[in-house]
Amino acid sequence: MTATETAILDIALAGIGKIARDQHIPAIAADPGLGLAATVSRSGGIEGVENHATMEALLAARPDIAAVSLCMPPQVRFEAAAAALRAGRHVMLEKPPGATVTEVLRLRDLAASQGVTLFATWHSRQAAGVATAKSFLAGKAIRRVRIDWKEDVRHWHPGQDWIWEPGGLGVFDPGINALSILTEILPAPVHVTAAELTFPENRAQPIAADLRFAGADGLVVEAEFDWRQTGPQTWDILAETDVGSLRLSDGGARLAIDGTAQEVAGSGEYPGLYRRFAGLIAAGQSDVDVAPLLHVADAFLTGRRNLTEPFHD
Amino acid sequence: MTATETAILDIALAGIGKIARDQHIPAIAADPGLGLAATVSRSGGIEGVENHATMEALLAARPDIAAVSLCMPPQVRFEAAAAALRAGRHVMLEKPPGATVTEVLRLRDLAASQGVTLFATWHSRQAAGVATAKSFLAGKAIRRVRIDWKEDVRHWHPGQDWIWEPGGLGVFDPGINALSILTEILPAPVHVTAAELTFPENRAQPIAADLRFAGADGLVVEAEFDWRQTGPQTWDILAETDVGSLRLSDGGARLAIDGTAQEVAGSGEYPGLYRRFAGLIAAGQSDVDVAPLLHVADAFLTGRRNLTEPFHD
Repeated sequence: MTATETAILDIALAGIGKIARDQHIPAIAADPGLGLAATVSRSGGIEGVENHATMEALLAARPDIAAVSLCMPPQVRFEAAAAALRAGRHVMLEKPPGATVTEVLRLRDLAASQGVTLFATWHSRQAAGVATAKSFLAGKAIRRVRIDWKEDVRHWHPGQDWIWEPGGLGVFDPGINALSILTEILPAPVHVTAAELTFPENRAQPIAADLRFAGADGLVVEAEFDWRQTGPQTWDILAETDVGSLRLSDGGARLAIDGTAQEVAGSGEYPGLYRRFAGLIAAGQSDVDVAPLLHVADAFLTGRRNLTEPFHD
Repeated sequence: MTATETAILDIALAGIGKIARDQHIPAIAADPGLGLAATVSRSGGIEGVENHATMEALLAARPDIAAVSLCMPPQVRFEAAAAALRAGRHVMLEKPPGATVTEVLRLRDLAASQGVTLFATWHSRQAAGVATAKSFLAGKAIRRVRIDWKEDVRHWHPGQDWIWEPGGLGVFDPGINALSILTEILPAPVHVTAAELTFPENRAQPIAADLRFAGADGLVVEAEFDWRQTGPQTWDILAETDVGSLRLSDGGARLAIDGTAQEVAGSGEYPGLYRRFAGLIAAGQSDVDVAPLLHVADAFLTGRRNLTEPFHD
């Protein structure tokens, strides 16, 4: 970390699991404007950083820390976020922003009444190809969108039991990344018209999902999410318009238009999120878009459930 | 129907099933300001009223009909509602307003862009005791709310297969009436923190649901919905505050405060809805509150699913 004369934004990080270690801690460390001032973790934090067992303990001990980033599982995020907002802290939420849509709307209202920033992040929207894809689609007639989001759950979520529990979203945990890109790049909203959710017999959350959406002027979006893909992994979005097509691949990191790879620049998803968080705080703004989570809730609400063979980690 | 010299608001009614015959047609007939000008039904309308097989046919044949009321099943309501709004007609939606939350938000935006009225109705909010209950709770510290909504599905929904299909909501079809009252009378929002949904082995929708919500200042709401209750039916909401308790019973028709029955006046739920629809049109306003449907979506999203014995009509 570079020491500078300008003010450093102190951040406390709550929930020290895989995503914190893989993404949040390196992103904070790489940003000269940010400092990791403390962690919140019941099971111990990281070496050399002050740790508190609970959010309440952190808030009481460190009134000087203005911003808190939460990456514990969504099922337990609301209480911690609400406590931080009530204590006047700015809050950043890992995706999905909560276990329910309504709790996120309550947090948004609480942040507004407290005059602090709430940032419900969607890290895939920071992928290198997304902004250019959005510009390409603006003003065009989009005929069809096809999403394939297929990965190996054993590789990406080893032993993460919370993801299979109610509120853990199952295959929608990665799938919501695709939906966060979709809702970012489309010029107008779509809604779920059909959903098939496939649950392992021994699990509370789906391991696969097929979705269909309808949009304006006959647009149809089809999405296939599957957690059983071994070998090469697939995170692709294809959009066909009246004047050409685009393909986002590698989760949005690569973009091709009419088959030609485009130059895209990006400094990484999580560095981008933290830069935006700091910018929102400086501007006194919030960014809380529940659309991706609402699509998942709609899919659960209206979807047909199928059972498949048990899943063992 | 009384003939008057003042302008009659012509209404077309789409979806001529049980709720249309039991509630909508009598309510329109009883209101001297309204006239049932046409129906839309594939299976035939009602005697003496012009019928069209599709919404498109109605809209083409009768540009003079300014308002359309939709009471077909929610799974097929979006397309009809969107067509009517695009044709510049005012639209009233039976509850639930759609099969997904997002489609209702899209209709709300479409109505706004077309400059017409959209009224997503919640008939239970028109029950006689609701307004007084809301006034009683305003400004009080509410400690606990208990909802029991238990009825016999065979009596209330005989042979209605759509209610068991994806998007049909199952026991949430009546339960959402309780949630529409809850969200009307509480001074601040709550969110689902736990849900247990019980599905018959042979059905896609739940026959029972236990919900728990959290609100501000420690408020807990518990709700029990069950479609297997024979004998006396139960539609009760009990709220305990720091200065007394209230009980809404008979689905909101009766109200007691601290055990004493209150005088409540009401002209009936559906007559109230149609009066409000006419008032919204006259004022150039819409009324689209998705909160009850969002709570159901949240319950599906975060709920634990249990299986129970098959249900046969």
